[in-house]
Amino acid sequence: MSAEPRRRTGVVDVGGTTMRRSVLEVGPDGEPVLGEVVTEPAAVEPAGAVEQVLAMAEVASRGVDALGVVLPGIVDDASGTGTWSENLGWRDVPFRALVQERVRVPVEVGHDVRAWGAAERRWGAARGLSDVAVVVVGTGIAAALVVDGRPLVAHGLAGEIGHLRVAGDEPCACGGTGCLEAVASAAGIVRQYNAVADAPVRGAIDVADAVRRREPLATEVWHTALDRLSDGLAAMATVVAPEAIVLGGGLARAGEDLFLAPLRSRLAARLRYTPVPDLRAARFAGTGGLIGAACLAARTTEE
Amino acid sequence: MSAEPRRRTGVVDVGGTTMRRSVLEVGPDGEPVLGEVVTEPAAVEPAGAVEQVLAMAEVASRGVDALGVVLPGIVDDASGTGTWSENLGWRDVPFRALVQERVRVPVEVGHDVRAWGAAERRWGAARGLSDVAVVVVGTGIAAALVVDGRPLVAHGLAGEIGHLRVAGDEPCACGGTGCLEAVASAAGIVRQYNAVADAPVRGAIDVADAVRRREPLATEVWHTALDRLSDGLAAMATVVAPEAIVLGGGLARAGEDLFLAPLRSRLAARLRYTPVPDLRAARFAGTGGLIGAACLAARTTEE
Repeated sequence: MSAEPRRRTGVVDVGGTTMRRSVLEVGPDGEPVLGEVVTEPAAVEPAGAVEQVLAMAEVASRGVDALGVVLPGIVDDASGTGTWSENLGWRDVPFRALVQERVRVPVEVGHDVRAWGAAERRWGAARGLSDVAVVVVGTGIAAALVVDGRPLVAHGLAGEIGHLRVAGDEPCACGGTGCLEAVASAAGIVRQYNAVADAPVRGAIDVADAVRRREPLATEVWHTALDRLSDGLAAMATVVAPEAIVLGGGLARAGEDLFLAPLRSRLAARLRYTPVPDLRAARFAGTGGLIGAACLAARTTEE
Repeated sequence: MSAEPRRRTGVVDVGGTTMRRSVLEVGPDGEPVLGEVVTEPAAVEPAGAVEQVLAMAEVASRGVDALGVVLPGIVDDASGTGTWSENLGWRDVPFRALVQERVRVPVEVGHDVRAWGAAERRWGAARGLSDVAVVVVGTGIAAALVVDGRPLVAHGLAGEIGHLRVAGDEPCACGGTGCLEAVASAAGIVRQYNAVADAPVRGAIDVADAVRRREPLATEVWHTALDRLSDGLAAMATVVAPEAIVLGGGLARAGEDLFLAPLRSRLAARLRYTPVPDLRAARFAGTGGLIGAACLAARTTEE
């Protein structure tokens, strides 16, 4: 992870609903410059989604020095395997090998959230930290964990904090109940609000707007979600002791007053033994996966 | 951690109430053989305790090739510093440097639970595992975490799972309430049982005996403790995804039927997304710190 990204890197961010590609260049000041981002809706069945990733990787590999591809779900970064994706339906797909067959530049394949973590460590809010968690609170909740300067992988299973059991019996997509992401993800907040509100909303930002207007139902759902999110962050902090937690994803867009500040006071109230980590907004709010893909690709120059 | 321990290693295990020293030899079959264990009650005030550690280390260093010392509390393994011990009262004591001034053999100083984890990985129940947690459930509760084959340190703060918030409002020594070790440690079980029982007991094993006699109060305290312990182990497993959890400490002596088997079914019921780790009894029930001290000392041959 310590090599500098090559000058021009092709990057692909595979999402459950959208696939994106771009080119990343490192400017003379050492900062990342992302080119135009080309977006496609993701195919709905597994074989189609795999072929779509390979085709997009092929296009993204033209005119660059290396290629980085990031995948959602459970990913084994060491072998570049897509172990499992709930949304895209695949199991044990050897993406690095498959992509490498199609393209002429060196390829790395890794996990989208861990790649985002690498981007925040190299260029963003986690720069210089050896013990840090980059937490994405979007449709789901997951963390890229770094301890003693090294990202934790554990066969792609480390940092799945969206499935920490917190209070309540909200059903989760994993088959359990009371999982953190069932209550405190952007999707969880919308689902809970729409279950009690007269007029349904489409996104968590709409709930945040209603909180700003002091609408009681929205305020209750929002604060309960922040209570549970701080329960989850406190548990994570107790296990791996990060100096800072960097927050990104849809919910983090609610900003300092409605999201970071109330989380900060809740976290401080929950931690007595473990030092309270600094809470920071991610730098790469919508582009962490793409920029992280370039950090992955930089590994290809190390070998 | 990969070097073989030297043939004769002096080992010191500093505890909150007892300090122990011995000599460890590796037999021709590669197995550890611990010599006579000499025990002293720990001094009660910080300066006396530090001096006692140094004096014991000096004796333990005679006639050996290397010396390993393990400390309780928060320990920075990298610098060999005793950052904090609640029981012994010290703060930021540079033990490795202080011991090295007194003895002529190479010295390593580390954390007792992480050292135990190293002993279980080299010779015990965690052998061959790259993702594993060795959890000691005694007076307190703490874990030695290994992810991707590397022990997690985080300035000595990783794995302090005794301070995970679980249910209830039991006060904890850390100043918080509802901490795992306030409810589910051997000391917590005794405290809770004695608060409701007619005849007080001295140890958690007495409570376990009462459970075997189907005494209702003991059974309730015991099962509640196992519920909370599985909550804590499930949270830990969700964050770092160990393949196995190795359990040691006073409570683990209650054995398979009363401890491991009920924990196993509870853990399986709590984890849906994260694979359920294998639960195993530690090999080095009472000697993990001493044997682990020899694993630490083996590092002195690597440099």
